[in-house]
Amino acid sequence: SEEEKIITATLFPGDGIGPEIAVSVKEIFAAAKAPIEWDEHWVGTKVDPRTGSFLTWESMESVRRNGVGLKGPMTTPIGKGFKSLNLTLRKELGLYSNVRPCLSIPGYRTRYDNVDLVTIRENTEGEYSGLEHQVVRGVVESIKIITRNASLRVAKYAFHYARLHGRKRVSAIHKANIMKKTDGLFLECCREVAAEYPDIVYEEVIIDNCCMMLVKNPSLFDVLVMPNLYGDIISDLCAGLIGGLGLTPSGNIGDNGLALMEAVHGTAPDIAGKNMANPTALLLSSVMMLHHLKLHNHADQIHNAVLKTISEGKYLTSDLGGKSTTTDYTKALIDNL
Amino acid sequence: SEEEKIITATLFPGDGIGPEIAVSVKEIFAAAKAPIEWDEHWVGTKVDPRTGSFLTWESMESVRRNGVGLKGPMTTPIGKGFKSLNLTLRKELGLYSNVRPCLSIPGYRTRYDNVDLVTIRENTEGEYSGLEHQVVRGVVESIKIITRNASLRVAKYAFHYARLHGRKRVSAIHKANIMKKTDGLFLECCREVAAEYPDIVYEEVIIDNCCMMLVKNPSLFDVLVMPNLYGDIISDLCAGLIGGLGLTPSGNIGDNGLALMEAVHGTAPDIAGKNMANPTALLLSSVMMLHHLKLHNHADQIHNAVLKTISEGKYLTSDLGGKSTTTDYTKALIDNL
Ligand SMILES: CC(C)[C@H](C(=O)O)[C@@H](O)C(=O)O
Ligand SMILES: CC(C)[C@H](C(=O)O)[C@@H](O)C(=O)O
Repeated sequence: SEEEKIITATLFPGDGIGPEIAVSVKEIFAAAKAPIEWDEHWVGTKVDPRTGSFLTWESMESVRRNGVGLKGPMTTPIGKGFKSLNLTLRKELGLYSNVRPCLSIPGYRTRYDNVDLVTIRENTEGEYSGLEHQVVRGVVESIKIITRNASLRVAKYAFHYARLHGRKRVSAIHKANIMKKTDGLFLECCREVAAEYPDIVYEEVIIDNCCMMLVKNPSLFDVLVMPNLYGDIISDLCAGLIGGLGLTPSGNIGDNGLALMEAVHGTAPDIAGKNMANPTALLLSSVMMLHHLKLHNHADQIHNAVLKTISEGKYLTSDLGGKSTTTDYTKALIDNL
Repeated sequence: SEEEKIITATLFPGDGIGPEIAVSVKEIFAAAKAPIEWDEHWVGTKVDPRTGSFLTWESMESVRRNGVGLKGPMTTPIGKGFKSLNLTLRKELGLYSNVRPCLSIPGYRTRYDNVDLVTIRENTEGEYSGLEHQVVRGVVESIKIITRNASLRVAKYAFHYARLHGRKRVSAIHKANIMKKTDGLFLECCREVAAEYPDIVYEEVIIDNCCMMLVKNPSLFDVLVMPNLYGDIISDLCAGLIGGLGLTPSGNIGDNGLALMEAVHGTAPDIAGKNMANPTALLLSSVMMLHHLKLHNHADQIHNAVLKTISEGKYLTSDLGGKSTTTDYTKALIDNL
């Protein structure tokens, strides 16, 4: 085989099961001779022993310099005034689009067959503005911000993505019958971009109706684009259709192709360190990363090995109903490369 | 049979298919000898020819006076600065809890069996505040308001409902990891009320995770209580699990037992007047109304006739995959009383 240029990618193993599933990805990449060199950084709620920091400036610089990275789960404490590392990374790195392809895994049975859709979520504003205050005792408000800039760039990304991947339809998800100004502006931006893509069908679907249609018949959808919170909700709903967050990859995309792919499941502290974790979501995210780097052959090779291993059903981790260790699953996958 | 006191209930047939499905309910009530006299009012986007009004003061007074009502669908134009009649009724009448029981209909097959859960939605504030403005060109905001009063009263209603109906668990749905103040206050109120119901299990579930769990395994839930928009989204998702809004009843509850039950599906203008509409959602809402009035025998009689008619599958309307007219379905149902 030809000599390939080695590409450096940042790796944040993360918290809980993160380090174990990252080991699995590294072993599989090595076995597949994927031309990736990992620039590994410690980011997570366990403090870096060298720096005393959760998230160092060097870690963020690494993603900026390499242009691409892979990230495991990181813990977000609830309601403690502690800022989510996941969100900090998205925000600081300007990763304004969150992409989650949601594809049925043949051989892993759920109530839904042949699901094949992609959610594209605005990743920086909306209900995630962090602007909240108490008006008087017992009356609090949160502010949802929608801007033309952020709406246009995510809409552009959605249509660009649709065309690049040969997809036929983009649905903008909204509640503009209630939030006429904010979601109204979001739709306006989507319509503007849609006008430049006459080859792609554009439609607008109200979020409640969208959720009902998704559970009744997901094949009605193709690419979905939406504000932050709706994307958070609908991407998890869609993950549920194919089996859950343990099987769905995710990518955060910014300007100039900056990309940080991530497993969006939790850190699973209860099974951390027990060699029980399922590395599939991180692995599929790494496949997205390879596609992003145009290393399509390597991506397909690893993707097919994942599908084959799950289809065979012999070496599944407990979350998928099997009894295998992370190590066994990884070995089986390497045999299937 | 004993002489029963006749109770007057308000009826708003509504727009589109509303009048036809209201006729069906009236015929079935008459055949079942349900002791209800209808006080019918014209509310909808077609202007009342006598008054020139969409929603008269008399219509609202009727609900207040009778204490109970039944409502068909009404049209909400999108983004025209025209206020939704549905929302106006909820707000003006102080109907602060929206209750949607979601029960599989044996005989109507979906991907899910034995779904049996109830969503209880805060119905007056949250993302539905109507407070929106443009900050500068291209930057707009919507304000979500959460108050202690409204959160406490819906939480109280949810636990009251759970105990009354012998339900075991109440799940509060939120996104307090992001909206720490607003959803945080909502949770605080739920916890306070939960403390008074030691017999009922209380848990808190993040909305994205909730949606994923619902599509994977709805039997994990029992009663769900949540702020307005989450309730809007999740109640439609749940309706989708059992077949859609054509099969799910809904009730809006206020102080002193004030109750306006409603079919929450659309007005279906494309089939209006064609004797094709499915009256099931309005009928199941009228069954909720009968239970609310403690007319449990009449409620059960009609409910069983609905279940039997749908199970038999001979006289179904087209939305359920059948070929019957509204009239035929109604006749079949009356035969099954
Ligand atoms: C962990 C949490 C802050 C995050 C979010 O709400 O975006 C998660 O649910 C996700 O979707 O990545
Ligand atoms: C028609 C619309 C305004 C309404 C809502 O958003 O509440 C509907 O979706 C509902 O759930 O009753």
